Amino acid sequence: MEFTDKAIGIDFGGTSIKMGVILGKQIIDEAPVIIPKDHPVPTELIQTIANQINQLREEHSDIKAVGCGVPGFVDAPTGRIHNLTNVPGWVDIPLRDLLSEKTGLPCVVENDANAMGIAEWKLGAAAGLQHVVCLTLGTGVGGAVIVNNQLVHGSKFVAGELGQSSINYNGRVGAYNNPGALEDYIGNNEFAIDAQRAYLEAGIEKCIDDCTPAALDAAATAGCDVALACWDDFARKLSCTLANCCWLLNPEAFVIGGGISKAGNTLFEPLRKHVAAQLSPPFSDHLKIIPAKFSNEAGIIGCAVLALETADA
Amino acid sequence: MEFTDKAIGIDFGGTSIKMGVILGKQIIDEAPVIIPKDHPVPTELIQTIANQINQLREEHSDIKAVGCGVPGFVDAPTGRIHNLTNVPGWVDIPLRDLLSEKTGLPCVVENDANAMGIAEWKLGAAAGLQHVVCLTLGTGVGGAVIVNNQLVHGSKFVAGELGQSSINYNGRVGAYNNPGALEDYIGNNEFAIDAQRAYLEAGIEKCIDDCTPAALDAAATAGCDVALACWDDFARKLSCTLANCCWLLNPEAFVIGGGISKAGNTLFEPLRKHVAAQLSPPFSDHLKIIPAKFSNEAGIIGCAVLALETADA
Repeated sequence: MEFTDKAIGIDFGGTSIKMGVILGKQIIDEAPVIIPKDHPVPTELIQTIANQINQLREEHSDIKAVGCGVPGFVDAPTGRIHNLTNVPGWVDIPLRDLLSEKTGLPCVVENDANAMGIAEWKLGAAAGLQHVVCLTLGTGVGGAVIVNNQLVHGSKFVAGELGQSSINYNGRVGAYNNPGALEDYIGNNEFAIDAQRAYLEAGIEKCIDDCTPAALDAAATAGCDVALACWDDFARKLSCTLANCCWLLNPEAFVIGGGISKAGNTLFEPLRKHVAAQLSPPFSDHLKIIPAKFSNEAGIIGCAVLALETADA
Repeated sequence: MEFTDKAIGIDFGGTSIKMGVILGKQIIDEAPVIIPKDHPVPTELIQTIANQINQLREEHSDIKAVGCGVPGFVDAPTGRIHNLTNVPGWVDIPLRDLLSEKTGLPCVVENDANAMGIAEWKLGAAAGLQHVVCLTLGTGVGGAVIVNNQLVHGSKFVAGELGQSSINYNGRVGAYNNPGALEDYIGNNEFAIDAQRAYLEAGIEKCIDDCTPAALDAAATAGCDVALACWDDFARKLSCTLANCCWLLNPEAFVIGGGISKAGNTLFEPLRKHVAAQLSPPFSDHLKIIPAKFSNEAGIIGCAVLALETADA
């Protein structure tokens, strides 16, 4: 698929907003928006975003559409935000209509993990595939599901919350009283705590700051048995959710992004091993488990692509 | 949706083959085919099936198409069987083409759990819904997944194997070396063994034949605390897989059929309670967990519907 028009993509995070002009697969211009610490009321922040969009259009008069990815629940067809995780005050906001009104451009609003999934599926690691599950691994675990070459929104547009899915019906109780939520095992913080404990059991005291994914990757690459065992355990837990997606949806590929995925083969080798070990051949024979192509820019690119496709439809 | 044409549906089981003529939602004629115990070679059995089809057409000259549901892996677009679980010798058989050749009718071949799901989605408990997961609970656990009003086949046409999905990454090791496979906890046999143990722990000796789902339903209905606890435990295990489907796909409904579902509210009440308790509101507020409309005839009806739709397409 080719995208030869320009669009603005917005990655709306809890503490900062990144905005970029996209042409093809490239961000050709950028404009960050800092969210003040006192969390301005949504109407003020939306005006700031609209001003920034209009400023970018002075440089790029041919911008066709705007896409905004947000960390929370969105009614995708209307672009209305139900609520945002970790961003106070953003409840029931018609963001798409407000942005359209203030800019005169066609706008779309999408969940941020879905936006990243769209970028990988349309232009990234899963380009050309029809059945894909994308995961972002970080403090939490986000997901996007593509089935029959369509993004799966589900009945209330909240599909893809892979971080909440369970790997143990008797496990740790998660944010929604859900036992065994994946992100309560493999989120950055939980991974660090588990690694600290594993080192302690091996007689090595580590402060928690030395148990970041980057530190554990470096240790594993240097051959540290404790770190290698930590990554194997991480991969085994994540493989449970990946295998469950396979039995249910029989995808062609998993695309894995987010901070922890930067560990590369330190993560991907044990992950592929554990997934293959628990699937029958028609599920595993052609399955790809691959790193995301895009990094921090995935959200911006995915939203811009979605905005162009929606404007063209 | 209305189905005013006649088709033949075939439910190909491990020990018997059921064949029915469908008009609308009804089976209007039936013709069982007994599989000899010595498992005839597939070509002979296919000839027997074709003869039976042709015999039914003497009564029903207006039959338009034939659909066959089989217990195993099928390449749905070509109707070629990869292999059948528990039916020796059925490997790499072009069943659709052989049946078409011998009958002159358009034929389709589909996995049997998918056929049951199609019946419930097109004409049964989930009629009119677009996002549905169907499960059949028995010796094993089968499934069918409908997303965006389409049956999900996945990349190799093996999607929907819910019985193999894990409820515990450290759990019992299943048929494919997969830890925590749902059907290794809630299949008929495992349910009976767990119930027998629960009775024993309560000081009551039960033979395994008194721990069938029907017996445990009767005991629970009569107020037996042990039986009630067994059903609650069963529901809690099953709820893990249902909640996982919700986080991933955000469906409108689960349709649950198969022998164990005949327990009705003995199963459905604790099941709804456990699922709701572990989901956030956008996932649980409108979710239906409902019994299948069709019973043993679901496979025949689903295949016939699929055959008519495919012939019309």
